[in-house]
Amino acid sequence: MLQSDEDLHLVLDYFAGLDHDKILVHGGGPQASLLSQKLGVAPQMNEGRRITDDATLEIVTMVYGGLLNKNLAALLQSKGVNAMGVSGADGDLIRAQKRPVDTIDYGWAGDIQPLPGNDNLKALLVAGFTPVFCSLTHDGKGQLLNTNADTIAAHLTKLMGADHEVTLAYCFDMPGVLSNPKDLKSIIEKLNQEDYIKLKQSGQIAQGMIPKLDNAFAALHAGAHQVILGNAQSLSAQPLGGTTLCIN
Amino acid sequence: MLQSDEDLHLVLDYFAGLDHDKILVHGGGPQASLLSQKLGVAPQMNEGRRITDDATLEIVTMVYGGLLNKNLAALLQSKGVNAMGVSGADGDLIRAQKRPVDTIDYGWAGDIQPLPGNDNLKALLVAGFTPVFCSLTHDGKGQLLNTNADTIAAHLTKLMGADHEVTLAYCFDMPGVLSNPKDLKSIIEKLNQEDYIKLKQSGQIAQGMIPKLDNAFAALHAGAHQVILGNAQSLSAQPLGGTTLCIN
Repeated sequence: MLQSDEDLHLVLDYFAGLDHDKILVHGGGPQASLLSQKLGVAPQMNEGRRITDDATLEIVTMVYGGLLNKNLAALLQSKGVNAMGVSGADGDLIRAQKRPVDTIDYGWAGDIQPLPGNDNLKALLVAGFTPVFCSLTHDGKGQLLNTNADTIAAHLTKLMGADHEVTLAYCFDMPGVLSNPKDLKSIIEKLNQEDYIKLKQSGQIAQGMIPKLDNAFAALHAGAHQVILGNAQSLSAQPLGGTTLCIN
Repeated sequence: MLQSDEDLHLVLDYFAGLDHDKILVHGGGPQASLLSQKLGVAPQMNEGRRITDDATLEIVTMVYGGLLNKNLAALLQSKGVNAMGVSGADGDLIRAQKRPVDTIDYGWAGDIQPLPGNDNLKALLVAGFTPVFCSLTHDGKGQLLNTNADTIAAHLTKLMGADHEVTLAYCFDMPGVLSNPKDLKSIIEKLNQEDYIKLKQSGQIAQGMIPKLDNAFAALHAGAHQVILGNAQSLSAQPLGGTTLCIN
C-alpha cells in the first residue's frame, strides 16, 4: 500500500477522519528491499522474516525511520493530523531485546520487552500529538533493532487499551481474511480463534496471514476491543474509543 | 563530528549532563554525500550549499531523518536523555517554504517561515521530551524540505528564548572562531558584531564561518543569551537557562 500513491492517500484520509486518539504504524519491507538492491546488499529472508545484518539495519533505519516515516508525517500534517513520526527509541516508546540466537541468527531483530511504568506514549497523546511509528525499536543501550510492524501495532493497542476501547486495524493488500487465497470474494466476515485454528490446520489460512492473525488474537486477548483486517478500499469502520492502524 | 565515534560520545555526554531544557540539532552532509556516491547520485553544491533535487531529497531524508536521527535518539536514551528525534514535519515543529528560484534553483531547499501561535515545541518540552532535530522541514502541504542545521538551531533558540535564557552552542570541527584559519591557536575569545564585520572585510573570517556567524548574530538579535562556538573537546560551558546545541 505504501507503494501506491492512490491507496496511500485513501488510507491516510481515512486515518485523518478518525476523531479520537489514534496511532499509525507502518512497515516498508518492499522499499527496504529496493534500496538493498540499489546498494548491492542482498536481502536475506527466513520464512518471510528479514535477517537484519549490519548493512540491513542501516538500510531499514534509513527507509523506515527516514524516507517513509518523515514523508508520512508531512503528508498527515497536510491532512490536519498533528503527526509525530517516531521509532521505539524516540521517547523510549518501545524497548526490545535482540532476538536470542537459536537455530537461526536474525541479527538485529528485536523482540518487544515492555518497560513497566513507562507512560511516554500517554504523555505524547495527552500533549496533542498523533504518533506515527516506524517498525524500529531499541534496547535502551544505544542499539536500534528491527521489529515487525504488525507486532508493534498489537503491542501499542495493548498499551492504549489501558485508557481506551481500542480497535486494531491491519491494512494490507487483501480485502480481508480469505477462506480461499485465490478467491478475493471468499472473505471471512467474522473469525473467532476456534475457527482460525481449524482453518490453519486445514491449510486454508497459511503463510503471511498466520503471524498477522496470531498478532490479532494476541491483541484481543490483551484487551483490544476488535481487530479488523482489509485493504485500503475496505477501510470504513468508525471506531469510537481509539484506533491503532497498521499499514504494510 | 558525527563521523568520529569518540567525539560524538564526548558531545552527547556533555549534552546529557546539561540539567535543563535543551534541544539538539544535527546536520549530516558528509554522510549524505557518502550515500549519494554509493547510489551514483552526484552531490551538487553551490557556494557550499547543497542543491536538493528529487534524488538528493530522498537521500537526505534517509540519512538525516533516519540513519543519524534515530541512532542519536537511541544513543541519548542510553545516556539517560528522554530524546525525541524529530524533523520539522513532526508535530508541525518547523514550517518552511521552498526557496524561490532566483539565479540558482536550490531545488527542495526550505527557508523557515514561522507559524505564529504554534506552541508544539513547548508542548514537547513540557511533556518531558528532549527534541533532537534533523535538518529537515516541511511546507505544510505534504512536502519535506532541506534546511540548514545552523539556521534551524538559531530559529529554535529564538523560540526557546520566549521562556528561557538560552545558550546556542555550535559544535563543529574547529576549536573556535579563528583569526587565522591556519593557526588552531588563534582563537578569538569574544567576538562582537562590529569586530566580526571588520574581520570579514579583511578576509580573516571567510567561507563556511560566514553563514555560521550570521546565524549566531541573528540568534543574539532575536534574544539568545549567548552563542558559543567550538569543537567536541572545547565544550564545557554549563548554561543555566536552556541550551540549543547544534552538531555538524
